[in-house]
Order: sequence, then C-alpha cells, then structure tokens
Amino acid sequence: MSAPPFLNWEEGEVEELFSRDARVMAPSAIRALSKVTADPAIISLAGGHPSADSFPAEEIKRILAELSRDLDVGLLQYGATAGHEGLRREILGILLERGIKAGGEELILCSGSQRGLDLLGRVLLDPGDIALMEVPSYPGAIACFRNLRVEMMGVPQDGEGLVVERLEEVLGSLRSQGRRVKLLYTIPNFQNPSGATLSPQRRAAVAELARREGFLILEDDPYGELYFEDGEREKLRPIASISGSPVVYISTFSKILAPGLRTAFVWGPPTVISKVELAAQASDLCSSMLDQRIIYEYCRTGGLRRALPRIRTLYREHGEALLGALEESMPKGVEWNRPRGGFFLWMRLPAGLEAEEMLQAAVARKVAYVPGRPFCVDGSGANALRLSFSKEPPERLRQGAHALAETVREQMR
Amino acid sequence: MSAPPFLNWEEGEVEELFSRDARVMAPSAIRALSKVTADPAIISLAGGHPSADSFPAEEIKRILAELSRDLDVGLLQYGATAGHEGLRREILGILLERGIKAGGEELILCSGSQRGLDLLGRVLLDPGDIALMEVPSYPGAIACFRNLRVEMMGVPQDGEGLVVERLEEVLGSLRSQGRRVKLLYTIPNFQNPSGATLSPQRRAAVAELARREGFLILEDDPYGELYFEDGEREKLRPIASISGSPVVYISTFSKILAPGLRTAFVWGPPTVISKVELAAQASDLCSSMLDQRIIYEYCRTGGLRRALPRIRTLYREHGEALLGALEESMPKGVEWNRPRGGFFLWMRLPAGLEAEEMLQAAVARKVAYVPGRPFCVDGSGANALRLSFSKEPPERLRQGAHALAETVREQMR
Repeated sequence: MSAPPFLNWEEGEVEELFSRDARVMAPSAIRALSKVTADPAIISLAGGHPSADSFPAEEIKRILAELSRDLDVGLLQYGATAGHEGLRREILGILLERGIKAGGEELILCSGSQRGLDLLGRVLLDPGDIALMEVPSYPGAIACFRNLRVEMMGVPQDGEGLVVERLEEVLGSLRSQGRRVKLLYTIPNFQNPSGATLSPQRRAAVAELARREGFLILEDDPYGELYFEDGEREKLRPIASISGSPVVYISTFSKILAPGLRTAFVWGPPTVISKVELAAQASDLCSSMLDQRIIYEYCRTGGLRRALPRIRTLYREHGEALLGALEESMPKGVEWNRPRGGFFLWMRLPAGLEAEEMLQAAVARKVAYVPGRPFCVDGSGANALRLSFSKEPPERLRQGAHALAETVREQMR
Repeated sequence: MSAPPFLNWEEGEVEELFSRDARVMAPSAIRALSKVTADPAIISLAGGHPSADSFPAEEIKRILAELSRDLDVGLLQYGATAGHEGLRREILGILLERGIKAGGEELILCSGSQRGLDLLGRVLLDPGDIALMEVPSYPGAIACFRNLRVEMMGVPQDGEGLVVERLEEVLGSLRSQGRRVKLLYTIPNFQNPSGATLSPQRRAAVAELARREGFLILEDDPYGELYFEDGEREKLRPIASISGSPVVYISTFSKILAPGLRTAFVWGPPTVISKVELAAQASDLCSSMLDQRIIYEYCRTGGLRRALPRIRTLYREHGEALLGALEESMPKGVEWNRPRGGFFLWMRLPAGLEAEEMLQAAVARKVAYVPGRPFCVDGSGANALRLSFSKEPPERLRQGAHALAETVREQMR
C-alpha cells in the first residue's frame, strides 16, 4: 500500500483523504470579506451582524449577577438534547404568538439556526436530492445543502417574494422529467438577501402547492419580529401557521437577542423532530446550558417582550437612514427595493457593471458590501449586491451609501 | 404525484421522507437509560456524567460576577468559527504540556467532543468507508460513524488497550481483500468503556502501523488528565505527540471542568483543520461565546491548573470505593479490570448471564449500569457491562457495588 496520503501534501493525494462531501466544501464569500470589514475605518454594509445597540447588555449583566450569586450546578452538567425545559416552554409561547400551536414533541432547540439547517439537511436530504432555493437566497443554507451534495434549483423572486407561477413552472418541468422535489427552502419574512416579504396570498399558494405536489417547505424565519411598522405584523404569519401545511420551521434568538448565545429552535411534525433529536444526540449531545438558561430568564421575566419595540425602532431608523441616503445620492440606473423590516436590501447595478469587480473600488472609498453571485444558485447575480443596514449606526450607513454612490458613479464613467 | 409522505403517517411513507443516513439512526442505549437513572433512589453506575463535586462552582461564580460588572458586548456577537482567540492560546499551552507542539493553524474549537467527532466524520468519511474501532468502544463515536453509514470493524483490547497483533491481522485481512482502512478510532487513556490504557510501546507501534499502512488515527482523549497517581502521567502522552504520526486528536473540557460549557478542541494537520473549519462554517458558524470566555478566564487565571490535583484525588477516591466494594462483595466468576484513572471499568459476567437481561433485576435493587452490547461493533458484549464511578459519591458507589453483587449472586442461582 502506498504512503499515507496524510503525509503527502501534493494536492491530489491530500484530496483523496477527504470525503466526497468535504471535496465540495468552499469558503464562505461573506466570511472571506471579514478581513476587510474588521478594519473599523471600513463601513460594513456586508455582514449580517446585528447592531451591538440591539443587545440587552444591562439585562444580561443582571442575569449574570443573579447566576453568580445562585448558580444551579445542573447548568454545568450535560443537558437534554431537546433543550432546557424552561426555555422550551417559553418558546412554545413564542410560537403560539406567531400562530403556531405546538406541543413539546414538535420542538427541538439547537445551537443556532445554522445548526438547525445542518441537522435538518442531514435527516432529510441525500446527495442528488433536489432542493428549490429562492434566487437570491441565504449563502449559509446554500453552503449547508452544497456540502450535502444536494442539487439546488432556483425560483425567482419579485417584490412580493418568490413568484408562485415560476415555482409551478419549475415543479412542472421537473415532474415531466420524472424528477421529484424534496423541499423548498424559503425565508418568507424580510428575506436574506432580497429584503422581500412573501405576501399572505402567496404563502397560502405555496403551502397548497407543497401539499399537492408532495414536497416539504423548510421555512427559515430569523427576521420576522423585526418589522418597521406594527401594521405589518399580521402579514408576517409563518407558512407553518397554515393548518396542515408540510412545513418545518426554524427560528432563532440571534437577531432579536444576541447571536453569541447560540440558540435556535426547530418546529415540525414529531417524526421529523425525533429524527433531528437522534441526529443531534450523535453530533453534539446538547447545546450550551448557560446560554439557554440566560435566554430562559430573559424571556421569563419579560425582557424580550419589552425589548422588541425598541429593537424594531432601531432597525427602522437604520433602514430609513440607508434608504434615504441611497435615494439622495445614487445615480440613475441603479435599482433597489424598500424592505419593510429585517436587515437587508438588494441592489442591481446598471448594465455593464459587475459587483465583484466594483468591490475593490468601494473598499478604497471605505465601504464594503457582498456581491450578489454567492446568493444565487442559478449563476445569476453578477450585477447585483446585498446591502445590510443592521450593524452600522445611521450616520455611518448614510456615509456608506454616499461612498457607494460615488463608487458607482465613478464606475459608470 | 402521490400525496406528500409528510402527511401520511404509515411507517413506509414516513420513512421515504428521510435521508439514507436518517434511516439508520437509532436511540442511544445510554440516553434511553436516563429515565431510569433520573430517579434519585437509583444509584447510577450507568452514565458518564462527571461528579458535580468536580465542578469549580465558586470559580465560575466569580467569573460570572466579573462578567456581570464588565461584559464585553463582543461576547454577544457572532464569533470566529475557529474559536475564541484567548482560549485558543490557552489550549495551545495545554497541548504543549501534553507533548503536542502546535501552531494555530492546527487547532479548531468546537461545541464538545461529540461535535468534533461529527465534523471529522463529515470531512473524512464516506458511506462504506472502513473505520476500525476498539472492542468495546464509545457508543457516541459508534453512533456518529453509523449515522454516516461507515463500515466499522472491531479490534480487541486486553489489559494494555488495543492488541497490536490483532490490529495487524485485521489490516492484513482487509488488504488481502483489496480493501483500505480509512481510520482507526482509539481512546488510549482510560478508555471508555474498558478503562484500559494503551501502553507506550503499543502507542509507538500503532503510530508506525498507521504510517506504513496509510490510515489515519483519530485519537480521542477526554480522560487523560484524570490519572489516579502522578507516576502515570508520562505513560499517558498522546499518540499525537509522536512526531510524524498521522493523527487527528480531540480533547475536551467536559470531564475536567464542566460538560455544560460545551467546549472541545481538535488538533491535526492544517489541511484537515481547514476542512473542519469549512464544515463548521456551514453547520454551526461558531460555538457559545460565553462558554468559551468563561473557560478562557478559568484557564488564564490558573483555575484549571489548581483544580486538577483535587479532581484527580476525587476520582481516585471514587475508583477505590467502587473497586474495593466490588472486591469484597462480588461472587467468584465475575471479572473486571482495575483502571488507573478515568471514569469507567468493564465487567464480565459468568457464563450464562446476560447483562441486558440482568438490568431489570439490578434496577429493582436500585442500581443501574450500561449493558455491554452497544459498546461492541462486532456484536459481542452480551455478558459484559460498563460500570461508571464518576458521578455517584463514594458511599453510594459502595452501596451500588453491593447491590450489583447481590443481583449477580441471585442471577447465578
């Protein structure tokens, strides 16, 4: 037998060491930008980090102080794979407020949404299975499915989210080839990266299509609480709240509390949840007990409920700052949408400009964004880009918009 | 197209919903016992939970109090996939003390050893690949590899750990079939569940075999710091410390600090670690920032260094209590080993007795253990069982041993 590939560093032999999944793994375009955005002089419209101003630092300090006086040593021990009992009850209440009447056997907690996506991907998807993805969509979900060697096909969006007629076309075309769709991955509320929100009519239509055609809807909802105006609320009810829909629903505390406290939750039929629990038993045993305990205390004492109006106002001010500055400074020919919540908007450059090529010029003017291509499973997006208004304060968002407008103007010459 | 399998609960149609990986997933035998061991009247020699007396509750309270006064809000934000920078430095120091001179590109942190196993399994193993497992071995690793549909083959152990001649036989037999072994999973120190420690001579021989035959060693070391006598220390040097060995090494804070603070670390060649980082980016983004920060502070201020002698004494007293009580009460024909550290010992019942059958009688006498079969990939272990002396205090360990001896005696009649 030949020498261990492990010790031979020539490319070919090292590759042989890795699984087929590992051979398709590739760095995240957004994480790759983090070296640029780590420079505080750069205004980052790139990453999807929450604003530090949204974190309830004082409440968390208070909870830490309580724990420092009266620490339940049970928190230091292994916990239940399904999650902290008290926090599970709080989350059942949160689901109910979102229109999802859930029993405990329909819920599992996990260390963040990305972990939930991975666990669901593991139990639902085989290599070669077909997953439909909105174009554009969240690169973390694309990476998760790519690493499982799932075949992803795109469904276009317009101002009201994914276009149901186009979804029907894709389904029809696959059906005529005798191929079956396993699931549709969708972010109906303030989509990442498009900022679009799926209309209630379309939610009903997508649920009905899924029932009829026999595919699952994987509904990812990190941003649904972050609407700018209270009037939006009713339109944001999850697809999962439509009775009898074949939905698995993921949501998280990352955008409404703090992503460092790695806690998300998955709701679905008990058969799916119990498989996810088996997968989790063999892949992480349990999530951080302290993180779960802090979130539990924060929810139980009404902290989250009190904080949400403030956080919504914060992000509305962020969104208005960016949108206002874009409107006053962007040259004609640049198009973007006006999200009514969330973290992101999607921008299209005039014909002839490419977002990847333009990035260096933007960074030279001290502003960063994420070029559109990594969001698009159909290879499109070259002339598009994502702008995030979550992290930077309003004044810097305005500066960033102006710098970006200057960059575009320069490139158009 | 037929109705969605999602909505039809007949067994066959629901199964169709799941991936091939998910169809082989099965509940953990140890977790299934947790309902029994949750009863405080039951003396649990079953689970591998650390003793609550080993947790540095006061130190952790002190760190929580400091954080409650001066919280770095960076802890609430997304963190680096590779782990908390300060804790990474501390871990490089810990590795050095264990004889592993590591650079930062050889290290990644993750949310517990089980998470590390899953990430390594994902990047290294394809369905059908061959992994060699000690018989008996850790059921969490067996479940992780089973869920990846890896083919596991057993290598027997004796009092000095895995038997190198038997490993050579297995390798030779596979070679003659033209089949290749991808990796050997081994726990050289105070093995779970055998309690055996691989001798230094065997470590060198296994490393040499791996180099020659071209397989990886996946070295799992949760218990290496938990030796009963200081004289053992030098014999416990990881295989990873042998220069040029094809080893990936996992260790954790779960047994020497607290499993609730989900933090483990993986050391290996940069090519492997960078693949693990890519896998982690798409499957959990980062681990709990607060857990990592607490462990960092604990290590940085010397807490771990000060605590270890006390923890070693604690478990030595536990081990001696169980071993002494077994010696004075067990009937002839029952055999067990005398571990020199760790959490576990392995017991063989006299011919005719089966550990699974006997469990109910043991529980009736208020003592629980884990039957041997789930530890053995070759189907053996029916007359064996694992006893854990980690969690219960010495007095209850003695009571448990006596109750177990009574159970065996009764069954032998």
